[in-house]
Amino acid sequence: MAIPADENARRVPAAAILAYMTDAFRACGLPEADAKTVAGAMLDADLSGSDAHGIFRLAGYVKQLKSGVFNPRANITVLERGPATALVDGDNGMGHLVMTYAANLAVELARASGVGWVGVRRSNHSGAGSTYVSIPVAHGMAGIYTAVSSSNFMAPWGGAEPLLGTNPIAVGIPAGNEPPVVLDIATSVVSNGQIRTYANAGKPMPEGWVISRKDGSAITDGKKLDEGMFMPMSTYKGSGLAIVLGLLGGPLNRAAFGRDVKDANSPPERESNTGHFIIALDVARFLPPDVFKSEMDRHIHDLTSSKKLPGVDEIRIPGQGRVARRDDRQKNGVPLAPELIKQVDDLAKTLNIAPLSGRS
Amino acid sequence: MAIPADENARRVPAAAILAYMTDAFRACGLPEADAKTVAGAMLDADLSGSDAHGIFRLAGYVKQLKSGVFNPRANITVLERGPATALVDGDNGMGHLVMTYAANLAVELARASGVGWVGVRRSNHSGAGSTYVSIPVAHGMAGIYTAVSSSNFMAPWGGAEPLLGTNPIAVGIPAGNEPPVVLDIATSVVSNGQIRTYANAGKPMPEGWVISRKDGSAITDGKKLDEGMFMPMSTYKGSGLAIVLGLLGGPLNRAAFGRDVKDANSPPERESNTGHFIIALDVARFLPPDVFKSEMDRHIHDLTSSKKLPGVDEIRIPGQGRVARRDDRQKNGVPLAPELIKQVDDLAKTLNIAPLSGRS
Repeated sequence: MAIPADENARRVPAAAILAYMTDAFRACGLPEADAKTVAGAMLDADLSGSDAHGIFRLAGYVKQLKSGVFNPRANITVLERGPATALVDGDNGMGHLVMTYAANLAVELARASGVGWVGVRRSNHSGAGSTYVSIPVAHGMAGIYTAVSSSNFMAPWGGAEPLLGTNPIAVGIPAGNEPPVVLDIATSVVSNGQIRTYANAGKPMPEGWVISRKDGSAITDGKKLDEGMFMPMSTYKGSGLAIVLGLLGGPLNRAAFGRDVKDANSPPERESNTGHFIIALDVARFLPPDVFKSEMDRHIHDLTSSKKLPGVDEIRIPGQGRVARRDDRQKNGVPLAPELIKQVDDLAKTLNIAPLSGRS
Repeated sequence: MAIPADENARRVPAAAILAYMTDAFRACGLPEADAKTVAGAMLDADLSGSDAHGIFRLAGYVKQLKSGVFNPRANITVLERGPATALVDGDNGMGHLVMTYAANLAVELARASGVGWVGVRRSNHSGAGSTYVSIPVAHGMAGIYTAVSSSNFMAPWGGAEPLLGTNPIAVGIPAGNEPPVVLDIATSVVSNGQIRTYANAGKPMPEGWVISRKDGSAITDGKKLDEGMFMPMSTYKGSGLAIVLGLLGGPLNRAAFGRDVKDANSPPERESNTGHFIIALDVARFLPPDVFKSEMDRHIHDLTSSKKLPGVDEIRIPGQGRVARRDDRQKNGVPLAPELIKQVDDLAKTLNIAPLSGRS
């Protein structure tokens, strides 16, 4: 999911964004190491092009921390642990912190047992799923991630009440010389971030993104989002995927799903009890990792070099765009809209930290 | 995926179909127990409404067994085994046999370690994924299944060569009094079985199912399937899912994927080297199974009883239709088209077994 490129965007060095976000979280009461972890996970989204999960979210997170909705000093604990499974309680801390912990635990379990499945309760919004499946991938493992979205925007197929999140699925698979394959998709036709971007810009949405709760007709006016529901991808299939991912990420971990998800009528201070799961799978239990990597490279090359339809520039393999964007942004800075830079500079004043603009 | 109901269909008792298919496989050289297992898995598809994966497939399977493409006396072995993972070699046996074995092994690993991930190589077409996730479900566990289709019908998004199967994903989750949630979907807009059914009936296909390999335009004439490719569900998302499922089910297990999948140019006797994976997850590692079951029931009820869009009879929760169909068909017989009954009766003569029609 990408925020449309803004022609007025300014390139800001990655190191400046990381330092700024770390300061902001420290100012909100996070311990030094936790502030760095959360800022790092958010920068990962900014670098790889999941712009709606990076510094764009900072003001919202700060608000939740300052008002006590998120716990800045979370004590993450392991409630249950088996040879290959664990259940983590996030203590209502920031989702980035909880999921970084859970992903590393899944890798540890997979190292010992071949596969590790870690369920999570009492977490919060954790940004881009690609960030967390990249943790097993960095250890030469495959990763699978889901989140039960902390807001409901989709109905079960045929329904008129939004009782499902756009519960995403992310899958990461290591390769050799080729970039790892990293898929990260919402189970709605388009993600919440993309819909909000159109709505905020006052740009009409294409038909097929949002439908009316009253009669299922198309809603294209972003001002009418409250009357609408997001369309699941591929109709009943996206609804079905959101349900099964939601049940395995939610109720299995005693986390929120369906009518238990916080809504407009919930007390604002109530915690979201966001659920997740993450799986790490050790490739080495199946074949020598070097053989797997070279087979991955061969197959990726076969797909990307295969014949294209007329008018197509490039065949899309999940994750390849991410690596190119990351290289560019590491070198040339992350493009940020002037409005976003102004917003975070204003935020700096309230937090009494150095503004982003002054950093280099 | 359902074959459209035929108004001329005759109801045939489930026990007769099971006995007939068992005899057929025995006549093809399968050991008694294996013949029963395969026939049972195919009947499961017929009972639950996956009609394209039941007795409908029998003549094709018999042909493969008789011509030596499938191995009727497969010696299934475990090549690698860890505390929570295993790699199974199907010895080019029938996929139903291999996947029944793999699913039971996944349950065994999950009982010991919390989760079991079993990869499979050298299998064949195994019918409906719902059959195999129902094995962990019967043990109170969740199950996740994929197959790398033994034929390629989809291109990677933007491509003009069908290098991907319609690699399905199935997920099963146990409930209490409600039917288990069982999702079983192809990653194409519609499944191969449904497309073939339209093509065989000479019925024009809706636009959006199949596109031209030449220019991406819609193909609606079933006679032109050879010039077409199946559309992935939700465009690049279905393509991405088919890729990641295919890589984890194929190359990770040293099974076929991409250009290695058998095609029209392959020698007909070459084995398909079909890959799969199946995961079993023990609910009891996360919370008491009774608590989980009652939470599942509550959430299923919340979804099915929620407000419907105008004109909608029923809110669709994956798996609920299956249970109703199974009850009906167990009691009243499986509806089979007269052409299908004639086909299997003709087959009986070549196999020297009693025809289906004479059984009750």
